[in-house]
Amino acid sequence: MTVKKNFRFGIDLGGTSAKLAVVSEKGKIVKESSVESGGISDPKQLVKKISNEAKRLTQSLQIQSIGVGVAGDIDSGRGLIRVSPNLGWKNVPLKKLLEKELKRKVTIDNDANVAAWGIYKTQVSQKVKNLFVLTLGTGVGGGIIVDKKLYVGATGSAGEIGHVTVEENGRLCNCGNRGCLETIAGGTHIKAVVKERLAQGEKSSLQDIFKKDPESITPYLISKAALEGDAFSISIWENVGKVLGVALGNLIYVFNPEAIYLTGGVAQAKDLILKPIWTQLKTRSFKTPIGAVQITVAKEASHIGVIGAALLQ
Amino acid sequence: MTVKKNFRFGIDLGGTSAKLAVVSEKGKIVKESSVESGGISDPKQLVKKISNEAKRLTQSLQIQSIGVGVAGDIDSGRGLIRVSPNLGWKNVPLKKLLEKELKRKVTIDNDANVAAWGIYKTQVSQKVKNLFVLTLGTGVGGGIIVDKKLYVGATGSAGEIGHVTVEENGRLCNCGNRGCLETIAGGTHIKAVVKERLAQGEKSSLQDIFKKDPESITPYLISKAALEGDAFSISIWENVGKVLGVALGNLIYVFNPEAIYLTGGVAQAKDLILKPIWTQLKTRSFKTPIGAVQITVAKEASHIGVIGAALLQ
Repeated sequence: MTVKKNFRFGIDLGGTSAKLAVVSEKGKIVKESSVESGGISDPKQLVKKISNEAKRLTQSLQIQSIGVGVAGDIDSGRGLIRVSPNLGWKNVPLKKLLEKELKRKVTIDNDANVAAWGIYKTQVSQKVKNLFVLTLGTGVGGGIIVDKKLYVGATGSAGEIGHVTVEENGRLCNCGNRGCLETIAGGTHIKAVVKERLAQGEKSSLQDIFKKDPESITPYLISKAALEGDAFSISIWENVGKVLGVALGNLIYVFNPEAIYLTGGVAQAKDLILKPIWTQLKTRSFKTPIGAVQITVAKEASHIGVIGAALLQ
Repeated sequence: MTVKKNFRFGIDLGGTSAKLAVVSEKGKIVKESSVESGGISDPKQLVKKISNEAKRLTQSLQIQSIGVGVAGDIDSGRGLIRVSPNLGWKNVPLKKLLEKELKRKVTIDNDANVAAWGIYKTQVSQKVKNLFVLTLGTGVGGGIIVDKKLYVGATGSAGEIGHVTVEENGRLCNCGNRGCLETIAGGTHIKAVVKERLAQGEKSSLQDIFKKDPESITPYLISKAALEGDAFSISIWENVGKVLGVALGNLIYVFNPEAIYLTGGVAQAKDLILKPIWTQLKTRSFKTPIGAVQITVAKEASHIGVIGAALLQ
């Protein structure tokens, strides 16, 4: 018997595992599973493995659409993975490979775009037509909604706010350039800066933890210390928030969105960064676009990638 | 006898005059006129004057749509001029006032958006779906085309790239903030910097002109001197181009357009700024969006405002 209800199917393809889920129209996970992706360098082999699991999971369900999110440089128009460092892939026609196995149309996009779409569809008022989702994780990324549709740009690269230059000759970024926003607001760099300053002996309640195990310093612990009044930790978030405020001010002037959602581990610092962001934004002369934007920390949702992928079409 | 052909009507409303034109579907001016707008502080009076001229100009023509471009903070959705410093107006419901007089639907937008739309419709391949038009005049502005439509954002403020911050604690901008892109790449600031440096006695072929009349220094003369090999003038454009390159690199990372068109007096420096822009862009690590964008100096078109306005709908 075929269940009549229409479902969507999402795949969140990462370097260690691929999450798979059957998702309702409203973005609720109905069934989920995962397969290991680490160590499988042959795309066809991994596609076969994922497809078999997808078929098992969707048996006797009516699936309306299939979407995939992948970290990397993705040509969503042509369904091509240009480069995915996590998977170690270059020029893989993922859409075509999956469509051959699943005998269905498949849509693919990069993970930041897919997460932005997931947040838009499940957390944001659909009165909002133009949205920017800022992903503050170990790295910094973004996704753009224009006129209620995912906007990916000419080559599927839009939203790369993590690598806008905010400081000439600033810290060296993973991307190879200096002074990218990610070198100030990315979790990896925040941790590195905190450890550097603690190693120099700056006064902080984090010193005890640092001395026991420098690697245990996390954005969560820096937030905790800040909320307990640690001046050092407060100043860390104030600087992150100030620079985010400059970058978001520039974004608001150019893109003029109704809303900006912050997501990812670093976004969980919440008011510790939102306050300095707003302090910075309020120094801007053009009050109309600044006054019209709402900035919100998205609800934590570990499955937003697979949900966003499922809802892509 | 009514002429059968369909025309569009545009109004470019500035602080000293309003240009009016009947424009063909393809953006050619068929008939044009202008009325003085300076010194008329009562919006109703100016609207009456413009409308009378519009009626005279369009007599016996079939007009399909009417569009207006105005400098200032414009709410295009509601057809409201929030503030227009040039006209000395605040909260003027221009759309409503014009519609009452002309008994026709009228669309209004700000001058940078209207110029961007005019360039898109008359100079850019319609294969280009996503475009940024950078206006480099006395000030710096911009307009955005997304998916072949004018994108104005939540409050009609989108495209304000002239006031993104490029230098913390930089030069004071007209807007009241410091270090805006306009303080480096706007004609007024370029002239001011050149005059400051010439007054300090820097060696340049411009010194003779400067000594006779400092006010006669223009972007055109700085370009001319640079093309004749004046090292000082070359360095001026190199710095403008470098900073534009950083700002456009950031824009390309976030917006990922197929094309960027430069327009306005400063854009006429052409290769003198295009070369350092590209030198800067080529330092960026993400080659896909940088490699996909074409940067072009738009054809000079003094009537692009009135043409863009006419083609708005």
